[in-house]
Amino acid sequence: MWLNTTMSISLDLERMESRIQEVVRQSVATKTTERIPAALSPLLDTVVNQAVQSSEGGKRLRARLTIDTYTLLTAHRDTANTMESSEQLTQAVIDIACAIEVFQTAALVHDDIIDDSDMRRGKPSAHHALSTRVHNRAIGNGLGLMLGDLLASSSMDIMNTAAAHLPASDAIRSTFITMHHDVEIGQILDLAIEQMPLDNPHALCDASYEVFRWKTASYTTIAPLQMAYLAAGMSQEDAQHHAYAIGEPLGVAFQLADDLLDVIGSSANTGKPVGGDIREGKRTVLLADALAQANQTQRDELITMYQASSRTQEQVSRVIALFQETHAIDRSYARIQTMWNRTCDAITHLPVNDATLAAMTAICARFVPSSVLMASGTPSM
Amino acid sequence: MWLNTTMSISLDLERMESRIQEVVRQSVATKTTERIPAALSPLLDTVVNQAVQSSEGGKRLRARLTIDTYTLLTAHRDTANTMESSEQLTQAVIDIACAIEVFQTAALVHDDIIDDSDMRRGKPSAHHALSTRVHNRAIGNGLGLMLGDLLASSSMDIMNTAAAHLPASDAIRSTFITMHHDVEIGQILDLAIEQMPLDNPHALCDASYEVFRWKTASYTTIAPLQMAYLAAGMSQEDAQHHAYAIGEPLGVAFQLADDLLDVIGSSANTGKPVGGDIREGKRTVLLADALAQANQTQRDELITMYQASSRTQEQVSRVIALFQETHAIDRSYARIQTMWNRTCDAITHLPVNDATLAAMTAICARFVPSSVLMASGTPSM
Repeated sequence: MWLNTTMSISLDLERMESRIQEVVRQSVATKTTERIPAALSPLLDTVVNQAVQSSEGGKRLRARLTIDTYTLLTAHRDTANTMESSEQLTQAVIDIACAIEVFQTAALVHDDIIDDSDMRRGKPSAHHALSTRVHNRAIGNGLGLMLGDLLASSSMDIMNTAAAHLPASDAIRSTFITMHHDVEIGQILDLAIEQMPLDNPHALCDASYEVFRWKTASYTTIAPLQMAYLAAGMSQEDAQHHAYAIGEPLGVAFQLADDLLDVIGSSANTGKPVGGDIREGKRTVLLADALAQANQTQRDELITMYQASSRTQEQVSRVIALFQETHAIDRSYARIQTMWNRTCDAITHLPVNDATLAAMTAICARFVPSSVLMASGTPSM
Repeated sequence: MWLNTTMSISLDLERMESRIQEVVRQSVATKTTERIPAALSPLLDTVVNQAVQSSEGGKRLRARLTIDTYTLLTAHRDTANTMESSEQLTQAVIDIACAIEVFQTAALVHDDIIDDSDMRRGKPSAHHALSTRVHNRAIGNGLGLMLGDLLASSSMDIMNTAAAHLPASDAIRSTFITMHHDVEIGQILDLAIEQMPLDNPHALCDASYEVFRWKTASYTTIAPLQMAYLAAGMSQEDAQHHAYAIGEPLGVAFQLADDLLDVIGSSANTGKPVGGDIREGKRTVLLADALAQANQTQRDELITMYQASSRTQEQVSRVIALFQETHAIDRSYARIQTMWNRTCDAITHLPVNDATLAAMTAICARFVPSSVLMASGTPSM
């Protein structure tokens, strides 16, 4: 069963990738192009092309979580008589998955404006690329802001149309809107963290965990699982319960691993520069743990470097050394393992057979790199 | 009938005003406040309070259009047996009206970031107020951007819940999402207009008219009418047809009047400074008409002033004088009258009795100040 499912999943992923292109082009473009004045269409085309470009290159982890979970939970069903309807349902679930990806792109476009980041996924960020195209930074930033808005409402459009073809369509709509809301709250809380004093590392750590739930777990794991469960026919109460029980620790583990890999580099040696978060002075759980576990000299050194407006490459290396000396990195491995264990435990409470539990665990494991888990429990690393 | 309707309308407006406060507070605030870390709640409270403040002070023209149109079209119905259900429907329509207002606030918050405007409705703009509160411009701007996102998704939330209680709920949802989309396209086109050369005033004028349809008529008149028609039970085709036929010229007239009043001042002598658009160098139909009707000397003078990065108060006065000398202002009065005549004509095609037609005309007339219409046809003004 699992092999067949895997095959259909790959097929669905290809369909999804071209579907993302299609829906972004359709929904960002206008329905009545003949009404766009000729003098203005070149700029609108530029924005539409940027929308498509910004949508490319994602790992589609979130979309795959939704599609694979749905496929897994409906694989055993007798669909001999309802093949057509089953095909329609699958297409609607793929569209929901696309909508999550389009929303992520919208959020990243705004995030890059807030952080004034020039790069995203190895290419110029949307507002940066648009500024270059129109030779005007203010107008480029304005276009980037509107592009994010446009992608956000496009994601609502795609979801709304797809939800109408699925069971529990009202619950799916609410889940999707709540996802938007929670990420936005998370982004606000994330900005608040940047203003927290560094003299209370435990408060910083607790706050970071909560923010991970809002800004990351919400749309990375919780909503993708919840909508898959709803589409597969689970009751609203059960869908919500299982999505939070499994998805919240999984999303937190994902963010902890992301922050950790930024410091230790990816095991695949992709050549991605390490320490980007440190260079930006981002307040992470790693920093909180380092501050909490540091001696006075180490703590003063960290605080001085983080209170500066920028950090040199040497200082970045020194911070990484301090994260190791204070065992903050070990602590992060352990934190990730704890969250992952919680997810594995929550999966066992799903009302499905053992083979499906194993497959669900494999699907969730994609969010936590094996290198990060295998290293856990190796205290001196 | 009309008197009773007016009374119920005033009542509905009060309900709406407190409902806007309530829904903004509810939906911007989190559902699980106990999970917000104590260290971060003060900033979140600041953002929530700013959301409420930014939502205050609007004239609610759009909400009133929806509520009054719905009330008018359903006033004759025999509701003796279905009083309770009628009350529920009215509450849902009020919520749709609130959702339009909340969306407008979201759009204004982002618009102020794009234009870097410090003031809105006589108070500091959202991102400006937030920057002051957190003593950090970058974080304040980031919070403003997220506040706009939050209000936009809140407007979806309010609409989505209300639509479930109304007939044609799917069509209402689509209309609302299309409204978001069209305004965003309109904002992008508006930025494109700022980059148009000034040597082709006819192209500038045509482009401005089309942009008015996207950025103003979409959410000011078309969508408010369309959703009221749908809620009152009109077919989807008819609702769309009448909303565009009536709403498009009305929304364009509204924007033309708004731009004209910025130059000639309001008839009520509110003391609002005139010429704000000129000071910002905004490209308007007034400017296009002035350029088209100017002699070479006047044209060169206008182009020189508009190509400068800013304009002094003396230059603003000189531009206003040129708008008068070239009869651009007369032309705007005539343009507004033409659009208003189209709206009045379109209203007569509604399948309702004469009293209802008259009432519908009165409702629409709120979008075009009588001073602007009465002055029309006075060639030498």
